[in-house]
Amino acid sequence: MSVNPDIQVERDTATFRSIDVTHMLDGSPEATNQRRIRQKQIGDDPQINRRNIIFMSHEERYEAAIARGLRIEQLKAEHDWDIMDENNAIMWCFSDIAMFVHKVMFIPAIERLGNKEQHDKWLPLAIDHKILGTYAQTELGHGTFLRGLEMEARYDKSTEEFVISTPKHSSMKWWPGSLGHSSSHAVLLATLYIDDQNCGMQPFIVQLRDLNTWKPLPGVEVGGIGPKMALATTDNGFLVLNNVRIPRDQMLMKYAQVSKDGKFTKSGAAKANYSTMMLVRVGIAHSCYFSLAVGATIVTRYSAVRRQGEIKPGAPEVKILDYQTQQLKVIPSIATAYAFHFCKEHLKWYYIETFQQIQQNDFSGLPEIHCVTSGLKAYMSDIATAQLETLRRACGGNGYLLSNGITNTYIQTLALPTVEGENTVLYLQVARYLMKCLKVAATGEAVKGSLSYMNEKIKTPYTSGLVTREDYSNVKKLLKLYQNMTVRLTQKAGDHLNKLHVSGQPKYEAWNNTSVQLVNAAKAYCQTYVLGMNIEGLSTQAVDLPGDALEVIHQLCVFYALHGITEQSGNFLETGCINITELHIIQQEAQEMMAKIRKNAVALVDAFDIPDNLLNSTLGCYDGNAYQHLYDSAKSDPMNQKQVLPAFEKYIKPMLQGKHTSKL
Amino acid sequence: MSVNPDIQVERDTATFRSIDVTHMLDGSPEATNQRRIRQKQIGDDPQINRRNIIFMSHEERYEAAIARGLRIEQLKAEHDWDIMDENNAIMWCFSDIAMFVHKVMFIPAIERLGNKEQHDKWLPLAIDHKILGTYAQTELGHGTFLRGLEMEARYDKSTEEFVISTPKHSSMKWWPGSLGHSSSHAVLLATLYIDDQNCGMQPFIVQLRDLNTWKPLPGVEVGGIGPKMALATTDNGFLVLNNVRIPRDQMLMKYAQVSKDGKFTKSGAAKANYSTMMLVRVGIAHSCYFSLAVGATIVTRYSAVRRQGEIKPGAPEVKILDYQTQQLKVIPSIATAYAFHFCKEHLKWYYIETFQQIQQNDFSGLPEIHCVTSGLKAYMSDIATAQLETLRRACGGNGYLLSNGITNTYIQTLALPTVEGENTVLYLQVARYLMKCLKVAATGEAVKGSLSYMNEKIKTPYTSGLVTREDYSNVKKLLKLYQNMTVRLTQKAGDHLNKLHVSGQPKYEAWNNTSVQLVNAAKAYCQTYVLGMNIEGLSTQAVDLPGDALEVIHQLCVFYALHGITEQSGNFLETGCINITELHIIQQEAQEMMAKIRKNAVALVDAFDIPDNLLNSTLGCYDGNAYQHLYDSAKSDPMNQKQVLPAFEKYIKPMLQGKHTSKL
Repeated sequence: MSVNPDIQVERDTATFRSIDVTHMLDGSPEATNQRRIRQKQIGDDPQINRRNIIFMSHEERYEAAIARGLRIEQLKAEHDWDIMDENNAIMWCFSDIAMFVHKVMFIPAIERLGNKEQHDKWLPLAIDHKILGTYAQTELGHGTFLRGLEMEARYDKSTEEFVISTPKHSSMKWWPGSLGHSSSHAVLLATLYIDDQNCGMQPFIVQLRDLNTWKPLPGVEVGGIGPKMALATTDNGFLVLNNVRIPRDQMLMKYAQVSKDGKFTKSGAAKANYSTMMLVRVGIAHSCYFSLAVGATIVTRYSAVRRQGEIKPGAPEVKILDYQTQQLKVIPSIATAYAFHFCKEHLKWYYIETFQQIQQNDFSGLPEIHCVTSGLKAYMSDIATAQLETLRRACGGNGYLLSNGITNTYIQTLALPTVEGENTVLYLQVARYLMKCLKVAATGEAVKGSLSYMNEKIKTPYTSGLVTREDYSNVKKLLKLYQNMTVRLTQKAGDHLNKLHVSGQPKYEAWNNTSVQLVNAAKAYCQTYVLGMNIEGLSTQAVDLPGDALEVIHQLCVFYALHGITEQSGNFLETGCINITELHIIQQEAQEMMAKIRKNAVALVDAFDIPDNLLNSTLGCYDGNAYQHLYDSAKSDPMNQKQVLPAFEKYIKPMLQGKHTSKL
Repeated sequence: MSVNPDIQVERDTATFRSIDVTHMLDGSPEATNQRRIRQKQIGDDPQINRRNIIFMSHEERYEAAIARGLRIEQLKAEHDWDIMDENNAIMWCFSDIAMFVHKVMFIPAIERLGNKEQHDKWLPLAIDHKILGTYAQTELGHGTFLRGLEMEARYDKSTEEFVISTPKHSSMKWWPGSLGHSSSHAVLLATLYIDDQNCGMQPFIVQLRDLNTWKPLPGVEVGGIGPKMALATTDNGFLVLNNVRIPRDQMLMKYAQVSKDGKFTKSGAAKANYSTMMLVRVGIAHSCYFSLAVGATIVTRYSAVRRQGEIKPGAPEVKILDYQTQQLKVIPSIATAYAFHFCKEHLKWYYIETFQQIQQNDFSGLPEIHCVTSGLKAYMSDIATAQLETLRRACGGNGYLLSNGITNTYIQTLALPTVEGENTVLYLQVARYLMKCLKVAATGEAVKGSLSYMNEKIKTPYTSGLVTREDYSNVKKLLKLYQNMTVRLTQKAGDHLNKLHVSGQPKYEAWNNTSVQLVNAAKAYCQTYVLGMNIEGLSTQAVDLPGDALEVIHQLCVFYALHGITEQSGNFLETGCINITELHIIQQEAQEMMAKIRKNAVALVDAFDIPDNLLNSTLGCYDGNAYQHLYDSAKSDPMNQKQVLPAFEKYIKPMLQGKHTSKL
């Protein structure tokens, strides 16, 4: 099919070359080539292709995802993938792959928590897929609050076994991925009791299913928790254990041990545990970028080929991308996707650096990176989901059709705000760190790291520093506004906390009664952090771009900063970081910048370079022939393969014949 | 199962009786009884019950919806339902009913657009279900912009027939409900040509399928447009017509006629058409209320029985409803649901009144009611969907499970912002009305209706009128802030429009370049309108409540007003309608009011009186036994009925046996 001229003209008139920006996003031209080779291996594979998933039932999707998981193993072997290739493949398949919990949680849990003998016994089995495992922690009654977990493992000296049981409904395992139908084993967290003494939560390896028949073993009740909004493929399950016995050496004993005669010992703290949690959150940041890039690509292209209505009366119908209101739905998501790119690149590097410090027993960087990864997981998933929904609606009615490709992206991304740490809980952890830094700053000591801007006194009377019109596109001056706003919202929360405490509320009660302000301050901190990383990216990753491309990437960053202020104008005005006159100028500048970016919108999403077979969208194909693809997709619906559905004979025909008022 | 004591205590300590408020919501105790009888007829019926829909495939859902539609017909006959009963039944089933387009669009279109002979011929067939119809207007290339519709009907004098055709892809019908597989006929809009002369868009009755075999007739290509986010049951379809011939008398000829010899005449304007559109929008307002009431009920109850974590260290785990951050997710939705109740009651009355005027050929009220119904459709669906998503997330991970009942409610409600007028387009229509009123006010003439507050001069220097602490819970004073904010945002948009125009932009271009501000002003107008109707409801519907109940409903209204300011603080500060000090007091007052309402949260959602079998939720059952219901629902998943799924033999077993690295 030839390319729609309405999208071709957008490409022809762009002021920069998309491929230059693609190279920046990938890191280098070689990295772009390498990625394209991998994406071709995946995208062209009929077993991996996700084109038909919209027509599948829950069980069909699950089965396809199992097949996809196996195929990924084969491709890995065939093409000699490394772990990054594999992780990327999973992300490009929108996690529509079963059994990855085995790889990303079960095996790492054994590595992290097992001793040498346990590594020798279990890792080869797991790596060779002779067993398939899950990591079972969350229970029906407890997710966030780990100390509340209720499953019990009681040590029986007489047989040298642990007896694991589920004392009540709320203590069954609930949600672990791959648990429903796809795991033979689990690393399971349970509270250890020896002679009725609580020895805290410990990890155990428990076999759940017979390896030959796959039937649950005696005492094991296991199954799926039922359909979800999406992710049929993760096979989340429940697990009830009725006095299931496992040998003593199936408690993972790196950090705690039970001797034959029931003596409990501990060795070292499991601080290294944090690193897995943080790595998963870094991965979520990457997914947020990718989802948003997918959404922005689809909707920007569709907006450039959909023509509807008139701006000038009587003139030809216009591309919907030419409506200012449509631009306001589309352009911020492009700018945010780029900001998220710089941010997730920074996070990767930051994680590696800190991990190396931890390896050398230097834990000093932990509190800060914990704050950053918690906060950005929450903030980026909040923003990505909000913008995806805005983008989805920007497709009008067709935003409700599954074949558009953005709907599935949205619904899958909706899992992120509540998995791996519920967002509000995470913001409150960030807030604890903010309060700690506030206290440090109050003593006159220097705050280090991302909050070092707390050390600068904000002068009174305050001036924004925005004097000339050029100042409004000076990203460093704009960043200063964000930083001041964050400091002031933090101080406001701190003051409120103190006021309540002084007025007689215990600290914990004052904390709860300030939590709305605390979450606000935490969000501001995250927003400021992302902008900071975007600006940093301009002078690191983007600096080698040809001038015309750099200019556009710079415009995006300016727009991101300006638009963020217009969206959160209440916070900026309330804290006095800008005044009303300045806000009006910022609104005007943001609109003008948006109009400039509009000209390059298609080229900017082309630069994400997401191939059609991964994009999986009728509306967003590279060729811009959205209507043809919509129609083709409808025609391929299995329900359309029959001229007449069975419902006609069963229900409609009797109705037409007047038999419907009798009991069915 | 006994009631969970954690929810019982909430009921025992409420400060008012839920049933009193239920009577207010229904209108009277008799109306409550009547509604309960109807809901029992529906909810207890096995064919109507929606309990298992979460396990169904696309086609199964469609078939169940056809069966449900037929069963509704039977119940209607059995129990002598009137049209309101039937509409309510459809709403209570969350529109999971096929073939209602026949009733709400096909039959009314014939009534509205047909002449006497056409009524006599078609209405009895349609009413007796001897034919089933749809209303086909939207095309692949055109939704909002009606003038752009491309399907053609050419009159052939020689045979006295119209020849209907689809000149290109973009002109196929796309989206009409019930079109895919469930309609024998359509009222279809097409541009009429007589001797190549364009006679505008006209309605035609076209038969699509054979009534005996249900096969598409020659020249008719019809099918479903594919799976959607939800609403499998509306059976949206596409339609291509290849020179399909229909007799002359199948053009609906009330407002335009074609004589045998091809003479085209018109008689009267189809202003009455508006009334159907408005009625549908009034219905959407009602759905927004109901969806939000469902969501608030589910999440409030779950928050009262889910215990997680500690506020006081070492103390028992607390109900999540006791966290301030959770209250901020739940309480605003309760307040909004009540505000929406008053608003939708007002709309019903307002519609009836205006309709009566129209019947008497008085069209003077049309512009205002068009503005109100357009704006509220957009605003209420925006707010309802946003709050439902907030509520869904407030359930943590279980918010992602379909059995929770809120997920489906959310996804179904997500259709509303883009159906029956895309929201941004509607806001811009409201903005046109605002600009018109602004002009009237500028001439010194009195603006009438909902915008009469434009007539009052806003004094300079401006004072908010908030002096004493009591002023902050004076709903009329708070309303004044909203009105002033609306006026000022409207003026701001008007000034911007003028500025651009004066600077040389043509009016249409200035309009497009001001549309972001125009939409902002329109939203403010809608928000103000809802608050106004909430306040009016206090002194009309709520006035007969016992004092304790009235007090709580009044608190909700105060909270609704205060919270709205905190959420839109940028607009209020930017327009100078409040200052920073006042904002801080408002934030404080809102928090305090929220804590008060929390005590009555469960009783307030109980008052919505939505029975469990319509609520269809594991998390929100009246008895509060959420964990038990979650587990029971999972156990009933068809995938859990097999101990071992076929995927084991097909994929997993070969993998365990090391055969997976060979080609699958």
